[in-house]
Amino acid sequence: MSDDRRLPSWRPGPTRDALLGFLDQVTTVPVDRRVACFDNDGTLWCERPTYVQLDFFLDVLGQAVARDAEVAKRTEFAALLSGDREEIDALGLPRIAMALAGLCAGISPEVFTAMVRDFLDRARHQVLDRPIRATTYQPMLELLDELRALDFTISVVTGGGTEFVRALSEDLYGVPPERVVGTLLDYDVVDPDGSPSLVRSTRLFGKVNEGAAKVGNIATQLGRRPILGVGNSAGDRQMLAWADAGEAPTLALLVDHDDAEREFAYAGKAETLAESEPITEVALRGGWTVVSMARDWATVFPPLD
Amino acid sequence: MSDDRRLPSWRPGPTRDALLGFLDQVTTVPVDRRVACFDNDGTLWCERPTYVQLDFFLDVLGQAVARDAEVAKRTEFAALLSGDREEIDALGLPRIAMALAGLCAGISPEVFTAMVRDFLDRARHQVLDRPIRATTYQPMLELLDELRALDFTISVVTGGGTEFVRALSEDLYGVPPERVVGTLLDYDVVDPDGSPSLVRSTRLFGKVNEGAAKVGNIATQLGRRPILGVGNSAGDRQMLAWADAGEAPTLALLVDHDDAEREFAYAGKAETLAESEPITEVALRGGWTVVSMARDWATVFPPLD
Repeated sequence: MSDDRRLPSWRPGPTRDALLGFLDQVTTVPVDRRVACFDNDGTLWCERPTYVQLDFFLDVLGQAVARDAEVAKRTEFAALLSGDREEIDALGLPRIAMALAGLCAGISPEVFTAMVRDFLDRARHQVLDRPIRATTYQPMLELLDELRALDFTISVVTGGGTEFVRALSEDLYGVPPERVVGTLLDYDVVDPDGSPSLVRSTRLFGKVNEGAAKVGNIATQLGRRPILGVGNSAGDRQMLAWADAGEAPTLALLVDHDDAEREFAYAGKAETLAESEPITEVALRGGWTVVSMARDWATVFPPLD
Repeated sequence: MSDDRRLPSWRPGPTRDALLGFLDQVTTVPVDRRVACFDNDGTLWCERPTYVQLDFFLDVLGQAVARDAEVAKRTEFAALLSGDREEIDALGLPRIAMALAGLCAGISPEVFTAMVRDFLDRARHQVLDRPIRATTYQPMLELLDELRALDFTISVVTGGGTEFVRALSEDLYGVPPERVVGTLLDYDVVDPDGSPSLVRSTRLFGKVNEGAAKVGNIATQLGRRPILGVGNSAGDRQMLAWADAGEAPTLALLVDHDDAEREFAYAGKAETLAESEPITEVALRGGWTVVSMARDWATVFPPLD
């Protein structure tokens, strides 16, 4: 295997061997069953110290406050802007997220997409010395390339907002909008004179895309079961278990963030879930392949231009 | 244009010219904006005298009654089996549809898909002397081929059940499951021991995919606006108007079922909608391209093997 030029940012060892073994095996699988589902935050790109989507909405909030200082007085926004962790926890992420989503209510999908892309074009990571758009994981980009070469249908299955991830998925991952499965906000269809248009609402369409909802939403939105599931948190457990338990060959891949030097070291537990067992132990018990960022990745981030 | 070998089943004339003109124009459109949305029943295949999906569920009902005669006594099923049109109308299509969907509650997506495919492998049309699977429209299959050659993202946007159409869309139209936008039933995710699986529920996930809901569901499920909309009924009006009003070039194509000899002649009005204006008049007023099946199609159905 040492001469294999695939996956150059993956260090030789059992993890890379497991990946290459899977890639060799799937050539016998009918193309319509070659479906791969990747979590986004912490799996395809960095999620620390904060989710990029939160950075985006804080940017939107900053602009809204610049236009009208009164906006800053809303309970959820006051807590966020003061950074009062206790108050933020007391309010809860769902309430704060919906308040932030409300900042974009009533605008068109095209304008929202343009806002996300404008943010990504200028946002830099708070700690890592690089643009946010370059905090994707180089080894994962190489894995996506190998899967594409094998005609896989690649999907990004995110707990984040579907439209937020759709605005960047083609550009960063080569994944078109219809293959992003996330937390959906519904639209209002405005049709006063026979010429319908869409504006963002603040109504959730279905469930927040975490845990068992990821399995249900993959089924309703993609209509196919993955044979490769890739994730990093407790919110990915059901998706990985479901992918893993399908007709062989299958692979469940879990990223362990154990690299404080090059990225961040933290336990793979979704903050919003109260599961007592670390997800890495679930992975080992289930025979999944655990990716140690520190040990298995020769390079973490893509080269800067 | 007379030497153009594209679209051979479309007779020379203004409709074919409009199509070819659109196909020539879209070469200047970025590939990610080349999105085409086709209604299914009455647009891609025959919907008369009954929707194929209803034929399928009646077949499932027949099998259920063969196993247990008591099933036939349920109000909705008794009405269907007796063919009592007045009683059927009194109960209403939504109630009957949900009762029929209940026959498949609790089964896995894979089993449901296999049931649909088994039905399609043996079902023959009630009037036309051909298999149901050969009641697709040959001119539309040719149009799909031309769009594919231009790297269009082709979507089937159906009022019917998403999973029903997903079971046949790749085979009949070359459209993969994730590009079928329809009326969705939610799944129950069963996860007793850490190994999740899915079973069909009877809960609607979102709205019945007709009218304005088609526009909203294209946005939530595909995340892109079509530049080509193709339909045949009042339930397609908003989708066609939305496609037509986008950045040029766009095309809205409406099939007029005016061919009693080779197919069926009926007004393009969805039975479930109470719109007073015939959809063909809406089309003419909007400058859409109306396809006269009798005049514009040299061939209606594909050749039989």
